[in-house]
Formats: sequence, structure tokens, C-alpha cells
Amino acid sequence: MSLLVTGSIGIDTVRTPVGESKDCLGGSAIYFSMAASFFAPVRLVGVIGEDCPFVLENVFAGKDVDLAGLEIRQGSKTFRWSGTYFGDMNQRTTDACELNVLAEDPPKVPDVYRDSEYVFLANTTPALQIELLEQVDSPKFVAADTMNLWINEYKDDLKKLLDKIDCLVLNDEEAILLSGDENLILAADSITKMGPKVVIVKKGQHGSLTAVADGDKFILPAYPAEKVIDPTGAGDSFAGGFMGYLVKENKTDTATLKKAVAYGTVVASFTIADFSLQGLTKTNRGDIDNRLAELRKVVKF
Amino acid sequence: MSLLVTGSIGIDTVRTPVGESKDCLGGSAIYFSMAASFFAPVRLVGVIGEDCPFVLENVFAGKDVDLAGLEIRQGSKTFRWSGTYFGDMNQRTTDACELNVLAEDPPKVPDVYRDSEYVFLANTTPALQIELLEQVDSPKFVAADTMNLWINEYKDDLKKLLDKIDCLVLNDEEAILLSGDENLILAADSITKMGPKVVIVKKGQHGSLTAVADGDKFILPAYPAEKVIDPTGAGDSFAGGFMGYLVKENKTDTATLKKAVAYGTVVASFTIADFSLQGLTKTNRGDIDNRLAELRKVVKF
Repeated sequence: MSLLVTGSIGIDTVRTPVGESKDCLGGSAIYFSMAASFFAPVRLVGVIGEDCPFVLENVFAGKDVDLAGLEIRQGSKTFRWSGTYFGDMNQRTTDACELNVLAEDPPKVPDVYRDSEYVFLANTTPALQIELLEQVDSPKFVAADTMNLWINEYKDDLKKLLDKIDCLVLNDEEAILLSGDENLILAADSITKMGPKVVIVKKGQHGSLTAVADGDKFILPAYPAEKVIDPTGAGDSFAGGFMGYLVKENKTDTATLKKAVAYGTVVASFTIADFSLQGLTKTNRGDIDNRLAELRKVVKF
Repeated sequence: MSLLVTGSIGIDTVRTPVGESKDCLGGSAIYFSMAASFFAPVRLVGVIGEDCPFVLENVFAGKDVDLAGLEIRQGSKTFRWSGTYFGDMNQRTTDACELNVLAEDPPKVPDVYRDSEYVFLANTTPALQIELLEQVDSPKFVAADTMNLWINEYKDDLKKLLDKIDCLVLNDEEAILLSGDENLILAADSITKMGPKVVIVKKGQHGSLTAVADGDKFILPAYPAEKVIDPTGAGDSFAGGFMGYLVKENKTDTATLKKAVAYGTVVASFTIADFSLQGLTKTNRGDIDNRLAELRKVVKF
């Protein structure tokens, strides 16, 4: 089985109430790949500039992450993002954002990736998500992330995308914005009617709500994290754990989707326990399975 | 087994985005009693004025609610509350509040209630909660509700109360305020160290977090309600379902507590589906058990 991810690779500077991490590796494709690689091989498509201080072969050493889709563009600069989290870390501000190479031509999906069966289109313009998806021949299950900016500014493109994907992952505010419904249950149901048969609404510390087009619902709290150091990458780690597990099982029936959401939830809990990728890199599959068992106990009655 | 509730009885006027309910029956003791009576007999202690248009014997006809502790005070006026809910109904404003008889001498716990084994002290000043509790000989399990006003203004009294009760029920903002910790997991843990061995943090549409003094956690989403008409009384209905089930089982071990929280969650979901008590009065125990089974399915993976 093959899992393709398209997304950003960036240099992040993050401030949280407990500390600061300057010029660390970030980006949706990075968090996703690291998270998914606990379960299945990953094919990464992304672009960085020649200034990027990180050698991704080293970052992913020992992980089954294929970097044939990584472009290091000469003469370009790597995407940079800087942000600050407040209070209980459910809120953040973007202090600086330099798109750099992300504002230029997008990377290409290598021909050897055309046969990818599972695809995750991390957050970018819906038009680019469609363009990237068109470079894959006949994927079996496609999931995408989106954000308020595209819902507000490129709704037509987004609707075209929704018609082409199997699963949309978005947060609660975005779900309300996209559906026009303030009740999250109804919001998620109404988005399944726009195309994707699976809609996952991320609710931060409150976990997630998954709606399937047949009306089935799955609601899971976040893993009860006592230590939150840096929430950056939590959503992409969630998506990585979720997609990675689907690929490993090579199934997308409802029972597998639910367990995949639980795995995504648990993987994200490791991400937020440290800055940048450190929460994930010091974790192994056994740790993940232990937390999955704990999470199951936490909701059992 | 015997379950005593002390709390308010009021005349409510409620506005929500879907309608208005004028001069309807409300109050914590009313919602609690109706909810708890699905599971066990209830003894109600409360006071109304001579102007109260509701005959509580009729309201609770066919329910096992003992009204020997109801005082109808001549020359006094009944408590009145009026409020408006907004948007997704997680926020409300109080438009008017006339304490009336609640600002006078509190009702007495009748001597025949002194042997009550389970006690719920609905929200009022901690000093009054203590005074009421002292009129019960040797209760087996005491739960109380509180609010931000008492946490801010009467913290010493509240701390005395916490030392005398087994379970505190409060909402997420109150838990943060009382503990000084923005992380709800740590907040709940830290409140168990103030006295109550069980702390239930209500999170509205996000469900509840239960922390037990031994470190055990139980996190449950709200029942996925597609129709929210009026959230008034949801918290007291939750407490009623919770305590009612404990009394019915006459156990307070962790497994029973978790199932009691689930029952409280489900009972509250019926309350919010209509104005005033109408959501509860048209519900039977079979409906509740059906939703409990659905809720179990919603969190299962």
C-alpha cells in the first residue's frame, strides 16, 4: 500500500507559555509524514529553498518516508512561520509568515508516485490541492485539510475539491463556517452532503467528531494530556496517524475509520508534549498502542 | 435508599434562537428532581412564594418525588429568572433575576429527611449549602454544585464545603477559576485534592470530564443532539440523572460513577430538546436506555 502526502515544509519559530523554539523544522507534510510512518510507508511531496538548514534524509532516518517527491529549489527560500500560543494553548497568533517558495510554482508529484492509493492533501489553496490530486492516477481514498481563508475566498474551488475527495478534515470553526450551521453535529452531516463521505471535525482539547455519510457518528475526546508544550502540528499529526492506520489496514470501512481516528488522536498527543518533532521522534509504536488502550479506558462505561 | 436535593424553584422566562418560553417552571431542584426520579425516589427541599402559579404535586404527579420539604411561604414571592441564549447556545445572558424568597430565610430540611443517604446541594452560597447539609445526620455520598461568584467571593466558605462533600460538579470555566490551572485535566485533579474524591467538570456541548481522587479519568462527549431548543436546566438534569443512578445502584465505586455520568449525560440531552420540563416529561426510562446504548456506540472504537 502507498500513502502520498502533499504539504508544506517550513522553518518555524514558536512561542508558548512554557518556552520558545526558534527556527525549528515544521510544516504539514513533515508532521504528517512522521506521524503516518509509525504505521505505513509514506511518500512525501513538498518543496524547500536552498537555504533550508535541515537535511530531511537525516530527519527521517530509520523511518519509511520516501523523499523522491522532495524538491530543493535553487535560488528560492524556504517557507517560514512564526507564532505565539496563549493561555490553555487553544488560541494562537501568527507573528510572521513568509511564504517564499510556497508562493512560487508548486512541486510536481513524481511519476513513480502516480500509483499512490491513499492521498492526503494538506492545507493549501483548493485549486492547488486539485492540481496535485490530478497527478495521481486512481487513488482509493483521498483526504484533505482546509482552512477558513479558502472557505471565505475560494468557496467554488473548495466545492470542486469536495466533489473529488473521500474525507475532509477541518476544525470546528471551519465546519461552522463551511456549513453555515452552528450545531457541529448538523454541520458535519451537511458537509458529508457536499461530497466527502467522511468528515472529521477537530475540536482541539475537546477531541473530534467524525460523521460518515450514512449518518454514523463517532465522537472521541482528546487524549487527556497533562503536559502541553507546543500544539503546532497536532492537526497534521492527527491526520498522519489517521491515514497511516487506514493504509496499514488497507480498509476504510466505518470500524476501521473509527480506530484510525483514535490512533490519530493518540499520535497528536505525543506531538503536543514537546516542541517541533521532538514529541514524535522520541515515541515508538508501543507507546502509541499503550495510549490507545488508555484512551479506550477513558471513554468506557 | 433516599436521595435529598436542596435547590431553587423558580419562574423562568427563556429566549433562545428558536423561540421563547415565558413564565415557565424552572429552578435547580425542579430539574434535578424530575431527572433523578427516572431512577430513584427523590426528597425535595425548596421554598416558593404564595404567588407561585405551579402546583408541584401536579407537576410531579406519577413521579416518586416527595414534597414534604417544599415550603410555600405566605407573604413572599417566588424566585424569578429571565435569560437569553445565543448562537450555538453555549452562551447566555441573564436579563433579569429577582431572588425574592431565596433572599429570605432558607427552607428547613424536614426531620423525616434527616436520614437521607444521598444528598445533592444545588448551587447556592457555600455557607447555606453547609447549613443544609448539617441538617442531615450521616449521608453516604454528598454532591454539590457551585459557581464563579462563590469561587470569587466566598472562597473560604467554599473550601469548608469542599471538605464535607464527596463530589463537586462544576463547569469548565469554574474549574479553571477554582484551581488556577488552565489545563482541565490538571484543574480537575487539583480540585480532588481540596476534598471531594470525585470532580465532574461539565463542558456543555463537549460533554464532561470526571476525575477521581485515585487519578482515574472518565471523559465523555455530550449526546450528539441535533436539536437544541433550550439548554436551561441541563446541568441540574445531568446531576439528577447522575445521582439518581447512584442511588438506584446504591454504589459509588468508579465503574458505577462512570455509568452514572453517562446516564446524567443522556438525561440532560432530553432536557435541552424542549423548553422548561417538557423535554423530560415526555421521556420514559426506555428512551433513556436507548440513548445510553447510542452514546456507548458513539464513543466505541
